[in-house]
Amino acid sequence: MSAGPSAAVDPQSLSPRRTAPDPTSSRPLAYGPPVDVHDLPTPALVVDGAALEHNVRTMAAGRPGRTLRPHVKAFKSTGLARYVESTGGHRSFCAATLRELEGLAAAGIGDDLLLANETLDTDRLARLVGTADATVTVAVDSAETVRVAADAGASVLVDVDVGLPRCGCAPEAAGALAELARSLGVEVRGVMGYEGHVVGRTDRAERARGVERSTALLRRAHESVGGDVVSAGGTGTWDLHDSSTEVQAGSYLLMDTHYAALGLPFREALEVEATVVSSSADRGWAVLDAGLKSFGMDHGDPTVPGWRVFFCSDEHTTIVPAEGGAPLPRVGARVRMRPAHVDPTVAYHERLVVLDGDQVVEMWPVDLRNW
Amino acid sequence: MSAGPSAAVDPQSLSPRRTAPDPTSSRPLAYGPPVDVHDLPTPALVVDGAALEHNVRTMAAGRPGRTLRPHVKAFKSTGLARYVESTGGHRSFCAATLRELEGLAAAGIGDDLLLANETLDTDRLARLVGTADATVTVAVDSAETVRVAADAGASVLVDVDVGLPRCGCAPEAAGALAELARSLGVEVRGVMGYEGHVVGRTDRAERARGVERSTALLRRAHESVGGDVVSAGGTGTWDLHDSSTEVQAGSYLLMDTHYAALGLPFREALEVEATVVSSSADRGWAVLDAGLKSFGMDHGDPTVPGWRVFFCSDEHTTIVPAEGGAPLPRVGARVRMRPAHVDPTVAYHERLVVLDGDQVVEMWPVDLRNW
Repeated sequence: MSAGPSAAVDPQSLSPRRTAPDPTSSRPLAYGPPVDVHDLPTPALVVDGAALEHNVRTMAAGRPGRTLRPHVKAFKSTGLARYVESTGGHRSFCAATLRELEGLAAAGIGDDLLLANETLDTDRLARLVGTADATVTVAVDSAETVRVAADAGASVLVDVDVGLPRCGCAPEAAGALAELARSLGVEVRGVMGYEGHVVGRTDRAERARGVERSTALLRRAHESVGGDVVSAGGTGTWDLHDSSTEVQAGSYLLMDTHYAALGLPFREALEVEATVVSSSADRGWAVLDAGLKSFGMDHGDPTVPGWRVFFCSDEHTTIVPAEGGAPLPRVGARVRMRPAHVDPTVAYHERLVVLDGDQVVEMWPVDLRNW
Repeated sequence: MSAGPSAAVDPQSLSPRRTAPDPTSSRPLAYGPPVDVHDLPTPALVVDGAALEHNVRTMAAGRPGRTLRPHVKAFKSTGLARYVESTGGHRSFCAATLRELEGLAAAGIGDDLLLANETLDTDRLARLVGTADATVTVAVDSAETVRVAADAGASVLVDVDVGLPRCGCAPEAAGALAELARSLGVEVRGVMGYEGHVVGRTDRAERARGVERSTALLRRAHESVGGDVVSAGGTGTWDLHDSSTEVQAGSYLLMDTHYAALGLPFREALEVEATVVSSSADRGWAVLDAGLKSFGMDHGDPTVPGWRVFFCSDEHTTIVPAEGGAPLPRVGARVRMRPAHVDPTVAYHERLVVLDGDQVVEMWPVDLRNW
């Protein structure tokens, strides 16, 4: 595994197990041999293969092996997870849903799988523990979730509230949960704490201060919990976690316009290819065939470089000229759009199309969607 | 077909072709016999069967048969489309994507299928025309899209800009497009014009004035185009279209909190069933396992009756107590959430689970997602 960015994508590296059918994919792909991106139906979720490879290698150079736990929630695809494993060299993965983890396990990806989330579904967790050829660990933050882990036979990380009002127990309650878990025969591997209120701050110094505060809480909890693992962080704080044993990051792979504003060394690799289906140039707008069902909208409208987004509707985005920008595109033209938030964007699509320039080099089903 | 609401759902009426396998569904359902809603994995998209039946019958009483063209984009399911056909008695359908229309045609639903959108994909449109056991019509608003229709052998409606800056030609350009189409041997069935800038206004009188303005433009275009069809409207203006031959509406079936604010006679039938996976009652919040990947967010946060939504993240919603509301729910409790916008919410899910009280009476795959 070489460190640092590579200028051109190596198509071979994008399909390390091209011959193995994906057991979790239910919808056959419509495409055989490589095609040109212009032959794809639109909207199509396309990935710049060179930018993806740059992102994988940049992260792996800074956080090699088990110091990174790639987060599958950002891309929901066993194909991309395999690429991260083979090219980045990481074998620990985390996920936000049981479906994501079940898919990884069924595809034989990784040897250390973490549900970085709480679950009450004992049956599915037990089935996963029983069938996965990997260690299965689950986050717990209550007596109820500890009992689920015990009944399912999973190991645990105690999830600690480090400032984001979401999951995680109070730091001072972590030790008692670990004690309860051990009394039920559960292996307590350590702690996790996600500083989600910090990772998106655009000022790096502010992110660093936030991580300092959150990891102080996490370390305090770790002292009372024990175990080898201190898991924290995300793409925005990937290189600010000296005192954690691993960082959970997924957005670094594909990126979005929100993360691009943070000055990270990762490149925007994800776009939606759209077709201009209508042009009212005389009245000042044109219409693309990708809208609210192609983009997660919680971080705002997608960006269309060269033009200004006027508004999005279900299957359309109306664009208008930008100050000093290009003239409006003609009907039939292809236009690229950039998502504001990668995770809920990918979750709308059924495949990631990896490109080398205009050529399709890989199709990865987004096979870990839904629950 | 009886008019007016019915108090209880008839499970039989929900599965008119229960024995026929759905050829467009690729993912087998995990459930055999009816189950209790509490046995479903969460998040689960659930439909109140009685409310759905009320909505279908109320609409069918006011706009029977071909005076309504149910819009499949709002629910993307052949199962629900079949129910609308059998219980509501409508046989004309419209859709926003080729995938939606291809799925209807493959399932043998409807006899008059309209792509209420522009397309440049001649090949797929031609294949649809060649295989569908139904009339296939497509909206056109440019010389390019007219030529696609001509090459594919589809009939057309001339799509007219009635005030929404999206698709649709200028009203004064409609006649020339119709002439071009006829010169290429295309059947011109009439006009369509969607007053999307009007349908969501909460004041009914304002909606009525908006429809008056938009239909005046549409009628002017119709005079120069000819044909039998004047297609317009949506759920918010369903009963304000005296001069149109048909209304395109889909949201009335499932509804959402946005449309519920309009005082329409349709009931909110769609909710997401979620599980409380974490509770920090001592610190003032609880966490549900449905978030940004379960709800279209363009119209704002989902609603959780009884509590206040603090914020949503990818797979979580943090709720806090509402003024005079219930105490925070405990870990493991089930909670219902209501979407702000139905269409992009359904597009995130793989199935609609129809309920009679707590019992599951039907599972409809959302089999018309993607493109």
